[in-house]
Amino acid sequence: MSPQNTPSLAVLQQAVREFRDARNWRQFHSPKNLSMSIAIEAAELMEHFQWLTLDEATSLAQTNSAARQAIAEELADVLIYCFSLADVLEYDIGEIIQAKLAKNAVKYPVE
Amino acid sequence: MSPQNTPSLAVLQQAVREFRDARNWRQFHSPKNLSMSIAIEAAELMEHFQWLTLDEATSLAQTNSAARQAIAEELADVLIYCFSLADVLEYDIGEIIQAKLAKNAVKYPVE
Amino acid sequence: MSPQNTPSLAVLQQAVREFRDARNWRQFHSPKNLSMSIAIEAAELMEHFQWLTLDEATSLAQTNSAARQAIAEELADVLIYCFSLADVLEYDIGEIIQAKLAKNAVKYPVE
Amino acid sequence: MSPQNTPSLAVLQQAVREFRDARNWRQFHSPKNLSMSIAIEAAELMEHFQWLTLDEATSLAQTNSAARQAIAEELADVLIYCFSLADVLEYDIGEIIQAKLAKNAVKYPVE
Repeated sequence: MSPQNTPSLAVLQQAVREFRDARNWRQFHSPKNLSMSIAIEAAELMEHFQWLTLDEATSLAQTNSAARQAIAEELADVLIYCFSLADVLEYDIGEIIQAKLAKNAVKYPVE
Repeated sequence: MSPQNTPSLAVLQQAVREFRDARNWRQFHSPKNLSMSIAIEAAELMEHFQWLTLDEATSLAQTNSAARQAIAEELADVLIYCFSLADVLEYDIGEIIQAKLAKNAVKYPVE
Repeated sequence: MSPQNTPSLAVLQQAVREFRDARNWRQFHSPKNLSMSIAIEAAELMEHFQWLTLDEATSLAQTNSAARQAIAEELADVLIYCFSLADVLEYDIGEIIQAKLAKNAVKYPVE
Repeated sequence: MSPQNTPSLAVLQQAVREFRDARNWRQFHSPKNLSMSIAIEAAELMEHFQWLTLDEATSLAQTNSAARQAIAEELADVLIYCFSLADVLEYDIGEIIQAKLAKNAVKYPVE
């Protein structure tokens, strides 16, 4: 997929919001619950690499297509809940990422 | 910020990549390490809500500007590591989110 | 079960060690992997309470016997990996808990 | 420390309970909050190993006395919250560990 064809952030956020609202799940999406959900999905992502060395984990994710697919799905779950939290708290995802990178750049200056 | 002004996904991914490479951190960004990093940042996000009721947590995140800023930074950290993992595994973020939403739609049909 | 009948810490640690060694799993039990395992099991524990209010979660864990059993199993998994990490790093569990409580008592003095 | 000198589980559980009650923290110790607390402390434990190879992490935890001390404290924090959750749900720690090992033994038979 070329960058030109990639959906914009606004399109993705809208898709996440519509998925939630079609199921009446907004009522469960409090910030506390969503922070737990992000952590739970992050753990499911880790589970793929739990018992592997760094090299084995890299190799699995790069060369095993079933694992590659499953790992993509767990990463997507983390992202979907991150987008959900940004939605309920009305954060602009692009803005908070750029602001944090700017802050990190001060904390970790390029040598 | 209007959607038009929001940076595109490609711009954000490029910013995350450049930040990493300017510091020579690519060597540490194995999938296993990044999955841990996502989980660690997710826990720091949860920490803001740890001892609060759902309503107290929502109120804090919506009305306390210092907390609101700190929570945005933790969420951004999770997103930055998600983007970093997508980069090293060459996942298209828009694609994996849309694919997972489509799969979830089958699992959780709208009633 | 009366306290007299409760197995001692040493007996539990021995049971965890024997379970691991009978399966030749010591080779996978590096501190990094075990720290991930503790976090993964902690997330599975959280999953039971993910979408519930504090009161609903308490009620579930206290009154639903199937949930009560499942929650006990997830908590046991966390504990088993904690014991496994203590084993490979040769920490005395009683000692590190008492030392941390003493340190916390200084940080959070009784008013 | 010889096993004879190790405090019993009942003594440790009592110490954790008294620490909590002396500070009036029982009101915050709902099962949902405690499950988050266990996950948060587990993440702090992982943080020590985040960017290290398996061998580097093992070496750090075995030979660097400051790291060794800090890792013990994070592990103790996980255990203290596990004991706290067992307390509010009236689980017998020895019993749930032994029951889970027995269940795991069926799932993972010795070859």
